[in-house]
Amino acid sequence: MSKYVIGVDFGTESGRAVVIDAANGREIASAVYPYSNGVIDETLPESGKRLEPDWALQDPEDYIRTFKQAVPEALKQSKVDPADVIGVGIDFTACTMLPVKADGTPLCVLPEWREKPHAWVKLWKHHAAQPEADTINRTAEEMGEPWLERYGGKISSEWFFSKVLQILNEAPEIYQAADRMIEAADWVIWQLTGVETRNSCTAGYKAIWSKREGFLPSKAYFKALHPQLENVVDEKMKRDVRSVGQKAGELTSQAAEWTGLKPGTAVAIANVDAHVAVPAATVTEPGRMVMIMGTSTCHMVLGEEEHLVPGICGYVEDGIIPGYFGYEAGQSCVGDHFAWFIEHCVPAAYQKEADQRGISIHALLEEKAAKLKVGESGLVALDWWNGNRSVLVDVDLTGMLLGMTLATKPEEIYRALIEATAFGTRMIVEAFQENGVPIHELVACGGLPGKNRMLMQIYSDVMGMPFKVSASQQTPALGSAMFGAVAAGKAAGGYDSIFEAAKYMAKLQDEFYQPNMANKAVYDRLFAEYKQLHDYFGRGENNVMKRLKALKAEILSGK
Amino acid sequence: MSKYVIGVDFGTESGRAVVIDAANGREIASAVYPYSNGVIDETLPESGKRLEPDWALQDPEDYIRTFKQAVPEALKQSKVDPADVIGVGIDFTACTMLPVKADGTPLCVLPEWREKPHAWVKLWKHHAAQPEADTINRTAEEMGEPWLERYGGKISSEWFFSKVLQILNEAPEIYQAADRMIEAADWVIWQLTGVETRNSCTAGYKAIWSKREGFLPSKAYFKALHPQLENVVDEKMKRDVRSVGQKAGELTSQAAEWTGLKPGTAVAIANVDAHVAVPAATVTEPGRMVMIMGTSTCHMVLGEEEHLVPGICGYVEDGIIPGYFGYEAGQSCVGDHFAWFIEHCVPAAYQKEADQRGISIHALLEEKAAKLKVGESGLVALDWWNGNRSVLVDVDLTGMLLGMTLATKPEEIYRALIEATAFGTRMIVEAFQENGVPIHELVACGGLPGKNRMLMQIYSDVMGMPFKVSASQQTPALGSAMFGAVAAGKAAGGYDSIFEAAKYMAKLQDEFYQPNMANKAVYDRLFAEYKQLHDYFGRGENNVMKRLKALKAEILSGK
Repeated sequence: MSKYVIGVDFGTESGRAVVIDAANGREIASAVYPYSNGVIDETLPESGKRLEPDWALQDPEDYIRTFKQAVPEALKQSKVDPADVIGVGIDFTACTMLPVKADGTPLCVLPEWREKPHAWVKLWKHHAAQPEADTINRTAEEMGEPWLERYGGKISSEWFFSKVLQILNEAPEIYQAADRMIEAADWVIWQLTGVETRNSCTAGYKAIWSKREGFLPSKAYFKALHPQLENVVDEKMKRDVRSVGQKAGELTSQAAEWTGLKPGTAVAIANVDAHVAVPAATVTEPGRMVMIMGTSTCHMVLGEEEHLVPGICGYVEDGIIPGYFGYEAGQSCVGDHFAWFIEHCVPAAYQKEADQRGISIHALLEEKAAKLKVGESGLVALDWWNGNRSVLVDVDLTGMLLGMTLATKPEEIYRALIEATAFGTRMIVEAFQENGVPIHELVACGGLPGKNRMLMQIYSDVMGMPFKVSASQQTPALGSAMFGAVAAGKAAGGYDSIFEAAKYMAKLQDEFYQPNMANKAVYDRLFAEYKQLHDYFGRGENNVMKRLKALKAEILSGK
Repeated sequence: MSKYVIGVDFGTESGRAVVIDAANGREIASAVYPYSNGVIDETLPESGKRLEPDWALQDPEDYIRTFKQAVPEALKQSKVDPADVIGVGIDFTACTMLPVKADGTPLCVLPEWREKPHAWVKLWKHHAAQPEADTINRTAEEMGEPWLERYGGKISSEWFFSKVLQILNEAPEIYQAADRMIEAADWVIWQLTGVETRNSCTAGYKAIWSKREGFLPSKAYFKALHPQLENVVDEKMKRDVRSVGQKAGELTSQAAEWTGLKPGTAVAIANVDAHVAVPAATVTEPGRMVMIMGTSTCHMVLGEEEHLVPGICGYVEDGIIPGYFGYEAGQSCVGDHFAWFIEHCVPAAYQKEADQRGISIHALLEEKAAKLKVGESGLVALDWWNGNRSVLVDVDLTGMLLGMTLATKPEEIYRALIEATAFGTRMIVEAFQENGVPIHELVACGGLPGKNRMLMQIYSDVMGMPFKVSASQQTPALGSAMFGAVAAGKAAGGYDSIFEAAKYMAKLQDEFYQPNMANKAVYDRLFAEYKQLHDYFGRGENNVMKRLKALKAEILSGK
């Protein structure tokens, strides 16, 4: 009499549905739907209308097609009876948002708005709202808005109100025509259940909301941003924000038809891909930091108390796990960093050696770098090739490498770059620890950990902490399914809380990384060097990186 | 009735003889003798005795073989009648020195000393006398020796008394057995003429001698270094030091037999390869700095007055051109820097492109880098991959590169490394200018200038000065020949002074590099950044490079 839950993970390029055994979290089957319109960053579908630089849109119909194609396909492969599927959860990239009508119809599907870029879904990595983010931050500083420091002192161009304000600035008719501005995460739940809900995770992390005080910016503040924005919350959003872990509603018959599931199946409140991974990585209590490691790294840790931690991305009560403050930090250049090095800096002789031995250049570099003793290279780097998110919150910082001699080898540089990202993580860990958010263990998920044993050991050594790894290859989808099981409830074969769900459904790999304390002692010395350089270049003592970047912009613009 | 002179350039791996037309400096023929024992840095010839790390020796018989083989060969090719060869000059690497008997016999050719490493010629790059150099510097500081600052505050392990003290410390029996300690440059002149002379160039730059005061360290100082060193000058050297530009003597009949030249041919006082290049590059007056650019760069400029310039290698009256103070500075990592980059940091895709187009990787990189606008890369580097000679005089400094993003390309890094060496030169130029030694033009010779047009233009732009290039491919040999023509004198078909010789025999290429002042303006801004980083990392504000190097040594020694 097994029961099953389905997690649907909406990513940047595709949506993935996974069928999970509710009793033990085992993955039964999964299917992926690659979005037919993918990331829209050059021209709009159909009209071919050109987009400005830094734009990144999606097509909301791709989300519906994920329900129509990936869910039935996964279900079919799993051979599970839809009657045994007790719940559905979803997670989404964030902030990914769109303007819709009162009935949930996206403006971009309406003929009159279809050729307007601002009518489409703004994907998380739509970066064209930087001027609006600048306005939001400057105005908040001028007005002494107290909520700014909850977000590390800076609201990102990726976040909700930056995107809303860009619509209002550049396409006021769209702003006007929209009855709702909504996270895509909440919008897909609306499509599944027929009920408009707003989740505490995106509201808190991306839309300046708190459980105790509601939306934090005042009407006066919104008005200062733009006269028409004064009543944005009442006019375009919902003040009723629901905690993750709650049930949003039940599958409508139309959604049941799309998915092949039964009408009435429980549906969880929406969630975010990174945050939903936390319980799926077994973490439902303070002290164990989850790191979702891919091109960049997202750090999540739970706390019992509210603390201001300078330079983190934000903290939200009930944002990750009900009853806890969920703290989030980020590093903007991790996997991307190593990919850059492999593409641009590995000599032909190494490529030849890798080819001759039939191994990847990555494997060859890891093999050579792993032979180096800690401190042997004499190198230290600052991992800012893509700016610094936490704890400096500064996109204008750039990379640095120091200590090269004529004997320096590529694998030494490669290892130094990996170590730099580990030091960057340690800066974050220490910022949490020093500000009342304890951390004693790391848990990894995402694409990097599986294939980078040396990296994992380096992180463990640098931090002096055990580094464990989520057992699931699809941690976000598993997390969504777990929340689906909680939405279904114990009586239906699910669980009464995410804590219970995690106990049975979430697992770590048996093998994990233990810190080598002799290496830790050397890394302590290297980290002291990193920290001194970090502060010198990152905290205003020598703003050479910003000046060089400004000079570069000046040269390229021909002024 | 043409007259000819011969210049012999004793290099690290070989000796080269060039036959030159005394009237116009035209090269008639040249021949090279590759030393049969090359650089001796692993085992002694014959005995196979193992050398310690950092040792580098030569075999003095290789110098005699150069006379016996390269000179006759060049003469033969030139078809010049030996009776028309009026003078010979030589230049040598320095400080390259050896212990000899009173009749000039090198100790290493005597059977009782042949298996003793300390009996052989210590080549300039013999670096095993670092402990002795440390003693020399520490003692000089403790005793407040005023001459230390003439040499940028530091005597090098490569220099004369460091090497002498190492012999005394490690092989006192060799020190005892040696009647003379002598520069190889002076020793070969002794072999040609039968007369022991000492030249002002090596004495001044390498053996702490000055024209007005003689050898500068006192007996008390030498005694403080080692009790037996007290009378080193009187016992093992000569106080009679002769200015470059003088005649040392005439070819003995034995030397005439070796070389195929006529007995009695005039022979000039010995000289050093870098210094002898100065008049050969047309410079016999103040204001025009000669740069001998190869793996490293040597900078030479003449001054009318005596000035202390912090961080240069030294200054010597009559050291380069009689009647002037010859100032010398150095950059320890120039061509080596680019070679390192090309070997270790150029990706396989670039190698493939170069192969497909049938050009060298160097040419491909130069082509790509030349397309970049000044300041476009956003990068700045410190060119300390091999330490910093001038103006910081610190072998423990290491390289730094700053400003990388995920879009940074190899050619941008390559160009930044070239620019860094240009900034390093500008530090030296400004040190001279700020301390009373004017410079308004640069003249290049050596291996780098010919094949690096972009580099030359960058240097010209960074300095805001014309950058000219010596016409001769064999500038040191030409310079030696010019001094040979001066030794012969006007009556014999030569010249009465090096000034006259330079007027007729030295030439520049017609084409030269003019600074682009728009680029200069941007480079001024980049140089300001370089300078700030240079001082921060190089003058003790953050000694991270030294600490990392010490840590590396600690790790590698296993302590």
